[in-house]
Amino acid sequence: MKKVDILELKETILENNDADADLLREQLKKQKTFYLNVMSSPGSGKTSVLLKTLEGLKNNYRVGVMEADIDSDVDALKIADAGFPSIQLHTGGMCHLDADMSRQGLRKIGVNIPEDTETETEKSETTEHLDAVILENVGNLVCPAEFDTGAVRNVVILSVPEGDDKPAKYPLIFQKCEVVLVNKIDTLPVFDFDFERLKKDIYALNPNAVILPLSAITGEGVENWCEWLAAEIDKWNK
Amino acid sequence: MKKVDILELKETILENNDADADLLREQLKKQKTFYLNVMSSPGSGKTSVLLKTLEGLKNNYRVGVMEADIDSDVDALKIADAGFPSIQLHTGGMCHLDADMSRQGLRKIGVNIPEDTETETEKSETTEHLDAVILENVGNLVCPAEFDTGAVRNVVILSVPEGDDKPAKYPLIFQKCEVVLVNKIDTLPVFDFDFERLKKDIYALNPNAVILPLSAITGEGVENWCEWLAAEIDKWNK
Repeated sequence: MKKVDILELKETILENNDADADLLREQLKKQKTFYLNVMSSPGSGKTSVLLKTLEGLKNNYRVGVMEADIDSDVDALKIADAGFPSIQLHTGGMCHLDADMSRQGLRKIGVNIPEDTETETEKSETTEHLDAVILENVGNLVCPAEFDTGAVRNVVILSVPEGDDKPAKYPLIFQKCEVVLVNKIDTLPVFDFDFERLKKDIYALNPNAVILPLSAITGEGVENWCEWLAAEIDKWNK
Repeated sequence: MKKVDILELKETILENNDADADLLREQLKKQKTFYLNVMSSPGSGKTSVLLKTLEGLKNNYRVGVMEADIDSDVDALKIADAGFPSIQLHTGGMCHLDADMSRQGLRKIGVNIPEDTETETEKSETTEHLDAVILENVGNLVCPAEFDTGAVRNVVILSVPEGDDKPAKYPLIFQKCEVVLVNKIDTLPVFDFDFERLKKDIYALNPNAVILPLSAITGEGVENWCEWLAAEIDKWNK
């Protein structure tokens, strides 16, 4: 296996994370780098979905991945082994990332964000331009929803085995996203999962949500998702 | 469906949660009430496992359930519909419970804890003695591990679809428990899940962990788990 850079994130003490998230989006817009925040429970298949996504985009975009985790670097190694730019972010026990922690990671993976903010971070080690960076947020349906990471778009991955009742139980995260990817649809035959109920519950919380079923194992639905994402990257970076 | 009591928890401002958790255990010991903290990801099947557990214990013990959730009361309703004492705890957006929040819930569900602590809580509405109370903690593998709820024993439920790599990624919660229930083992044929790897990783973090495979759907393994729990209740309440 390859080695990946591990960045130990510094806790942010900014008073206004929302304003800092807006500033980060401005900085990314100037650099023509799209930033996607991927949130889910532990075990929903984030890393597998990301690998399929990177494959689907690689002919047209250079995309890097930041894997956030309490500990370990298993996810970043999987991405690096597949040949994509990848770093591991360690949150030091924290259950979420905010905009400034995002910025520390984005600099480390190679996005050229000027040092006009309060945070000192490690300098980028690469200069090749990234069209998009994907953050695999900490596996958690609660805390990540409460902090704007500065991402341009936010995705929730919900997998079939977790059950169709998650929007009722974790409403905020389904309100704070633009897309819900319903992963592991190849396992629908073995679970009691009501897709229509799920859609109804999501639309009740978030009428504009885009709901896309897919399976990172069989590849079903991956093309639809990559098309949606490519269009968003093009809009942001034009 | 029945109606269940919903308790909006007050945030605790105690400086020393660990000491308060020890105090809560003393209070429970005096009342001969065992307290079990159940932690897991969203969608691991906590509520289904609890229903099987309550069925398995009902002939010998009176057991109540506190369902903690950010929002909604779907889980408490399921338990109440099955005929067991149940209340819903709302954490007001918080991602975990501490000992004092536990105590607020325990009083509400009917455990007679004297008012010698700093918190004012609603009085119990029932006087029938509970041999055990089970807390279904917020679905989250990160934050609940960081706070001692005052429970006598702590259980993590990990379901097969979540993957065998969870101990590597969320080590603290696997260190802070006495039992790991590996749920949904009926789905082993459709997932790439290495049970031996899982056991090795858990034992590396927590050599004394008890690892019990089960399926809340087929009932396999439920008896073993109920036997373990009954023995722990007997030890505590003797």
